[in-house]
Amino acid sequence: MDSRIAAILLIYCKDQKGIVARVAGFIHDFGGNILDSDHHTDRETGDFLMRTVFDLEGFQIPREEIAASFAPIAKIFGISFQLHFSGQRPRVGILVSHLDHCLVDLLQRQRRGELEIDIPLIISNHEVCRFWAELFDIPFFYFPVQPGSKQEQEDQVLAELKPRQISLLVMARYMQILSSQFLDQVGCPIINIHHSFLPAFSGAKPYHQAYQRGVKVIGATAHYATAELDEGPIIEQDVIRIGHRDSIQDLIRKGRDLEVMVLARALRLHVEHRVLVYGQKTVIFD
Amino acid sequence: MDSRIAAILLIYCKDQKGIVARVAGFIHDFGGNILDSDHHTDRETGDFLMRTVFDLEGFQIPREEIAASFAPIAKIFGISFQLHFSGQRPRVGILVSHLDHCLVDLLQRQRRGELEIDIPLIISNHEVCRFWAELFDIPFFYFPVQPGSKQEQEDQVLAELKPRQISLLVMARYMQILSSQFLDQVGCPIINIHHSFLPAFSGAKPYHQAYQRGVKVIGATAHYATAELDEGPIIEQDVIRIGHRDSIQDLIRKGRDLEVMVLARALRLHVEHRVLVYGQKTVIFD
Amino acid sequence: MDSRIAAILLIYCKDQKGIVARVAGFIHDFGGNILDSDHHTDRETGDFLMRTVFDLEGFQIPREEIAASFAPIAKIFGISFQLHFSGQRPRVGILVSHLDHCLVDLLQRQRRGELEIDIPLIISNHEVCRFWAELFDIPFFYFPVQPGSKQEQEDQVLAELKPRQISLLVMARYMQILSSQFLDQVGCPIINIHHSFLPAFSGAKPYHQAYQRGVKVIGATAHYATAELDEGPIIEQDVIRIGHRDSIQDLIRKGRDLEVMVLARALRLHVEHRVLVYGQKTVIFD
Amino acid sequence: MDSRIAAILLIYCKDQKGIVARVAGFIHDFGGNILDSDHHTDRETGDFLMRTVFDLEGFQIPREEIAASFAPIAKIFGISFQLHFSGQRPRVGILVSHLDHCLVDLLQRQRRGELEIDIPLIISNHEVCRFWAELFDIPFFYFPVQPGSKQEQEDQVLAELKPRQISLLVMARYMQILSSQFLDQVGCPIINIHHSFLPAFSGAKPYHQAYQRGVKVIGATAHYATAELDEGPIIEQDVIRIGHRDSIQDLIRKGRDLEVMVLARALRLHVEHRVLVYGQKTVIFD
Repeated sequence: MDSRIAAILLIYCKDQKGIVARVAGFIHDFGGNILDSDHHTDRETGDFLMRTVFDLEGFQIPREEIAASFAPIAKIFGISFQLHFSGQRPRVGILVSHLDHCLVDLLQRQRRGELEIDIPLIISNHEVCRFWAELFDIPFFYFPVQPGSKQEQEDQVLAELKPRQISLLVMARYMQILSSQFLDQVGCPIINIHHSFLPAFSGAKPYHQAYQRGVKVIGATAHYATAELDEGPIIEQDVIRIGHRDSIQDLIRKGRDLEVMVLARALRLHVEHRVLVYGQKTVIFD
Repeated sequence: MDSRIAAILLIYCKDQKGIVARVAGFIHDFGGNILDSDHHTDRETGDFLMRTVFDLEGFQIPREEIAASFAPIAKIFGISFQLHFSGQRPRVGILVSHLDHCLVDLLQRQRRGELEIDIPLIISNHEVCRFWAELFDIPFFYFPVQPGSKQEQEDQVLAELKPRQISLLVMARYMQILSSQFLDQVGCPIINIHHSFLPAFSGAKPYHQAYQRGVKVIGATAHYATAELDEGPIIEQDVIRIGHRDSIQDLIRKGRDLEVMVLARALRLHVEHRVLVYGQKTVIFD
Repeated sequence: MDSRIAAILLIYCKDQKGIVARVAGFIHDFGGNILDSDHHTDRETGDFLMRTVFDLEGFQIPREEIAASFAPIAKIFGISFQLHFSGQRPRVGILVSHLDHCLVDLLQRQRRGELEIDIPLIISNHEVCRFWAELFDIPFFYFPVQPGSKQEQEDQVLAELKPRQISLLVMARYMQILSSQFLDQVGCPIINIHHSFLPAFSGAKPYHQAYQRGVKVIGATAHYATAELDEGPIIEQDVIRIGHRDSIQDLIRKGRDLEVMVLARALRLHVEHRVLVYGQKTVIFD
Repeated sequence: MDSRIAAILLIYCKDQKGIVARVAGFIHDFGGNILDSDHHTDRETGDFLMRTVFDLEGFQIPREEIAASFAPIAKIFGISFQLHFSGQRPRVGILVSHLDHCLVDLLQRQRRGELEIDIPLIISNHEVCRFWAELFDIPFFYFPVQPGSKQEQEDQVLAELKPRQISLLVMARYMQILSSQFLDQVGCPIINIHHSFLPAFSGAKPYHQAYQRGVKVIGATAHYATAELDEGPIIEQDVIRIGHRDSIQDLIRKGRDLEVMVLARALRLHVEHRVLVYGQKTVIFD
């Protein structure tokens, strides 16, 4: 990625003539240069989705006025849009259980500069990941889940997220089901990593289910969390071959590597604003 | 594969000490040479499964007496066993609908010498594959399925299979559900190719289901047909990546290539006696 | 793919401001609707490459005048462009040896409507593929290669290609090296399938080389043929895992499946005008 | 893996009748139970390679006398053998440069119990990995490589390895070429991770070479280091797809994930005594 600041414009509307010309014209008329542009028309639903990246160097509209300047065009075409800038680092909160493999991987990628995010806090229902939080100087909160205390615990989580202006929440093997009240109140998207190839083996203990069924391939799925469990829009999936020699422990071991990879890729896609959700599905501009 | 005749011994029993030594001893004592041997112990169920290939050159027991000679050892250990010989060409019946891609692929592999099978007949509920049957000089039977005539049609199929001593039936995209009576009477294993990654998207129109769900990977599954639909032991599975640009037609196109590959690999594994079924699962000696 | 006729515009020039706006504006000003558009800027070389598909329904310039109408814009930006129409079926000549697996696969895909091409002739240095040519009613020419007769044989090939206005030549495991004179005179692109993961194992007998080296993965590469052997721009590559149990015959068998897939995908990409060559490399708009 | 102690017997000899029976008989006669056994005969070279795991519970020969007891059988068949025990933790030295991704991954896997090894030291020609060594309480040695000081530096490395009885050395992206004197003196196998699909792109900057060539797939190779650079026996390889949108930085990023996976798998195979080297190649018993 270039070090120069670029604007990333995400557009969603019903398909109609002239959208690309109008958007490209807007950018060109004010001195912008399109660095990357991709769009997709869903022929079945008639939805039009577009991602355009343009260089801000020499662009005649100041950053903070671009959205307002584009609004009249959006109104004509009935466009919903998001405008992001390449320098902005999303503020990502992480939820984790006692399984640390996804967490450590994300911390390493961030440290290495591969994921351009800030991580203002890590919240867990176990103590074991405090080690990593302290190593990387990230505030850590231990909020255990007791029988009957789920709502209270979720309120504790929300109370820490809110003042930190979290723009994305990542469930890095959190292994708790978030209530629909939580989802309503959190105010930012949530990415979950499910340890199976959804929709196969949804629910608990998917590796045990896969072992029982004798499948030859296992998978992992990163998706946005929604009120319907394991039904949110899928961002990324991948699989690995297994055989009869693999015990459940081997499935868990191979699955860990998959989960790490699939979550890291999904997070990168989200952070670079390459994901557009429409209906139950996603468009990935990669 | 060598041109010399080899015996292939498949063994299934409860795990106990000394099985490998006893089987290897039996082969060695009569002058056989083990070419390949592999076994698997399922630690959870305590099942022991083994495949041993030995050279018949210089083996002091005639082919037709080997099974009887091994029977006392089998009795001691409570072993179920199958004995095959590498020169035997299985007699494979093919069921097909109007979709010819798997059929043509199997015929090509057989013609090329890659699949060492005989194909004594092809049965279809459509006329379109007659072309291929005639090209390859294989008897073709057209038994259409009418509403209410399913049992009658299955009887027609059985009547052609029986006199031809079919040792394996392949559903090469047959797209009909076989009744449990048919399964009881057919007297040989049946391999089906399902056009999804089972257990995801079982049932009808899996590519449409995959498209609606927005998955990033689709699969195909070759399995033995059992009375419970899509629940038979899995022989082989594979997957391919898809994206939002892929229409349902693209999924069907990519899926065809997957189905062809997965069915061909499963058939090869079965024909080379590399598959052992136990419970709902398979062991693949490959 | 839609049945309506669409124009496919491929553009290549040095990157500069306003290209996307100008091209999209041209299409919109004359009543066209962009169905799909993708571009790529190579930051290292400063090359700009673009593929735009637009609906011709309601477009106010007749098909045969579009190129001329676009020429002034092309001149301003120094653009090289190609203009294709979705109804046009490329005329594809096939060169083949005695190995028929890629040939049969391409014929099947064409017959099934998956590859929208015409095949006016098949040329071989062996007789064995005449069977398939006759089955599919395609003229077949047998031009054997004798020691010392290579140029003469190539002249025979050229003499049959020229009057048939071939727009693409496919080497479907032809296993002959084309001379640079032939490449100069043929007047159309040539796609070759090489049975290894180029640049590894270029030259003869790559599966034997792979076996000797003990690699764990083998590959296949579809590329445009150029005067420098095995050095042409790569269109598609894929791989498959192998192990120590695989003999050279197994490598050849697994490789056949790879070759078939990789060539079919490359051909589809070319036929749908999704490949742009620049320098030694390709951009794939898929 | 079971917690009970098992013996792992690796055998290499010329193929001959009765080896399996004799080895299995030896184990059975003294009360052992074979848990897993696999062998491979290379038909081209006539080499026989075998790995047998047997339970020591109830085995009538004490651990320290098993090798001597087996020696007469080995002599009869001309067998070279290794005998390992499942409880033994290999002592693994790690060489690393300033790139820490493979190192951190190995340390995590060890900490998590996935890799049953001890790591008595980490040696680097840079200071940056000291952080990780100290975090995991592992002695760290910084031996920079100066122009002309290579031999001296290698002597420093050897001086630290020797007293610690290292049984395996891992080059976790060390990026230095070891001299043949060093290889002669080190006295244990060395595993290197090369960041390409060998034999393609051997030598320096393979990702740059891959980018220049425009390949569609990149790979990584874990192999034993030998005096001939990049020519040692291959343990594991894997690949990932790339496209024209991927810059060299993207190749490096995707490659890091591959290197981590391929090295971790190779190390696990070695540590579990699943690799047998013969000639330039390996047999992997997995």
